Amino acid sequence: MRNLKLTLAYDGTDYYGWAVQPNLPTIQGAVVEVLEKITQERVRLYGCGRTDAGVHALGQVAHFKTRAEIPAENVRRALNSLLPAAIRVTEVKEVPQDFHARWHAEAKTYRYRLLCAEICPPFVWRYVYHYPYPLNTDAMREALPCFIGEHDFTSFSSWASERDEEKNKVRTVLSLELAVCDSDQEVTVTIHGRAFLRHMVRKMVGTLLEVGKERLKPEAIAAIFAARDRTRSGPTVPGSGLCLVSVDYPEPYR
Amino acid sequence: MRNLKLTLAYDGTDYYGWAVQPNLPTIQGAVVEVLEKITQERVRLYGCGRTDAGVHALGQVAHFKTRAEIPAENVRRALNSLLPAAIRVTEVKEVPQDFHARWHAEAKTYRYRLLCAEICPPFVWRYVYHYPYPLNTDAMREALPCFIGEHDFTSFSSWASERDEEKNKVRTVLSLELAVCDSDQEVTVTIHGRAFLRHMVRKMVGTLLEVGKERLKPEAIAAIFAARDRTRSGPTVPGSGLCLVSVDYPEPYR
Repeated sequence: MRNLKLTLAYDGTDYYGWAVQPNLPTIQGAVVEVLEKITQERVRLYGCGRTDAGVHALGQVAHFKTRAEIPAENVRRALNSLLPAAIRVTEVKEVPQDFHARWHAEAKTYRYRLLCAEICPPFVWRYVYHYPYPLNTDAMREALPCFIGEHDFTSFSSWASERDEEKNKVRTVLSLELAVCDSDQEVTVTIHGRAFLRHMVRKMVGTLLEVGKERLKPEAIAAIFAARDRTRSGPTVPGSGLCLVSVDYPEPYR
Repeated sequence: MRNLKLTLAYDGTDYYGWAVQPNLPTIQGAVVEVLEKITQERVRLYGCGRTDAGVHALGQVAHFKTRAEIPAENVRRALNSLLPAAIRVTEVKEVPQDFHARWHAEAKTYRYRLLCAEICPPFVWRYVYHYPYPLNTDAMREALPCFIGEHDFTSFSSWASERDEEKNKVRTVLSLELAVCDSDQEVTVTIHGRAFLRHMVRKMVGTLLEVGKERLKPEAIAAIFAARDRTRSGPTVPGSGLCLVSVDYPEPYR
C-alpha cells in the first residue's frame, strides 16, 4: 500500500465543514468521492483536523492509503480536474507508511480576518467577519500575551468540546499576532499553536473583539482563564473569517 | 419626483446578469425588489448598461425616480442591509431630474483578469478566467494599439449584437492596457471606451489571447477588423473574468 499526503486549499462557504456528514456537502466527502473515482477503490481519508462549516483552508492536510499505482503528480491533476473549483489540491506526495495527518501534526497556523470598513466588498464577504465599527487595536494587542503559552483553555472551549477526546483542555499557543491593514479597515489575527479545542480560535477572537470594543479590559483575560467557564469569554465569531493556513510536520513527513 | 443615482458593486457569479429575466436571479431584479420594499412604490430602475451572466461590477451605475422622501444616505444603508452580500450599493446620490444612467454615460472602464497559474486558488476562480498556460504577453502588448480609436467592431460583436440598437457597429476605444502581475501568473486587460457592443470586450480579450498563445500574429488584427466578420476573431472568453470598473459622467451628474 502507498501512503499519499494531500495538501488542500478550499473556500468553505458552501460546505458543512471538513468532516463527512450524511446528505450534506462537506470537503472530506467531496474529496473522497473524487479519490474513489480516480483509484477505483474504497478510500478512507484522514484529515489533520476538522474545519467547521464556512471555515476556509489554504493548507489543510490529509492522507489516504491506496494500491493504485498512479504517480502522485497525476493524482493531484486528476483531483483538480474533477473537484469543484472551490476545492484545490495544491500538493500530493508519497510519504512513509506510518504517516498520519492527524497524529503527526506538530502545530497549526490559523488566521482570522475582521473587516471594519462600513461596506463589505461583494468579493470579500465570504472570507471575513464584517464588523463595521472602529476597534481599539492597541487594547487588543495588549491582550495578546495573555493567551500565549500553555493554559487550560476551558473558558475558550464550546459545547462542541464536551467530546471525550477533549476532556483535557490544556493547550499551547506558540504565537499570536495582530496585523492592521488598509488604514485600519482590516484586522487580522494569526495564531500558531500545537493543537486547538473546537471553536477555540473563534472564542479567542470573540474575546479579543470584546477588548477591541472596550467592553472588556485586557487585564480581564487572566480572570477569564482562571474561571474555567466558557460563558465568561466572548462569543464564537463566525466561521467565514477563519482560515487554516498551514500544518507543521516533522522532517520525514514534510 | 426625486431622481436617485446608485453606484453598485457586485459578484455576478450567481446571477443571470444585470437585466431582469422572469424567474431567474438577476442584479437588477434583486435591487428593484429591495427598492420597492424601501420606497413602498413601484420602481423602474435604469442601468448604465447590461452586464452578462457571471460578469462582476465595482462601479455599475443605475437611477430611479421616487416620491419617497428618505435621505439618499438612508436609502443606501437600507439597501445594504436588505440586499444579499454579493450586491453592495457604494453610493446613493440625488441628481438632476434629467439624469439618465444610460444616456449620460460618456465612457466606461472594464477590466478582464486572466490567471495563468497552474492552480486557480479557490478564493479567486469566481473573478478570473483560468488559462493555466504561458502567454506571450509581449505579442499581446504589440496588438493593443490596433484596437484603440474609432473602428467598425463588427468582427468583435456577437450574435447578441444583432439587435436593432446595435446596427451601427462603430465604437471608440479610448485606451487599452495590459498589466502582468505576480511573476507572470496574472494578466489584466483594462479597457476604457465610449460604448461597447455586447460581448465586445470578451471577443477582444479572446482575440488577444489567441495572440498570446501565438496562434495569431499581432499584425493579423487589422485584417480581422477589415473583414467585418465575427467568425474571424477569437472566442468570447468567459464572463467570470470581466468586471465593469466604472462609468464616466459629465460634471453635473458625477
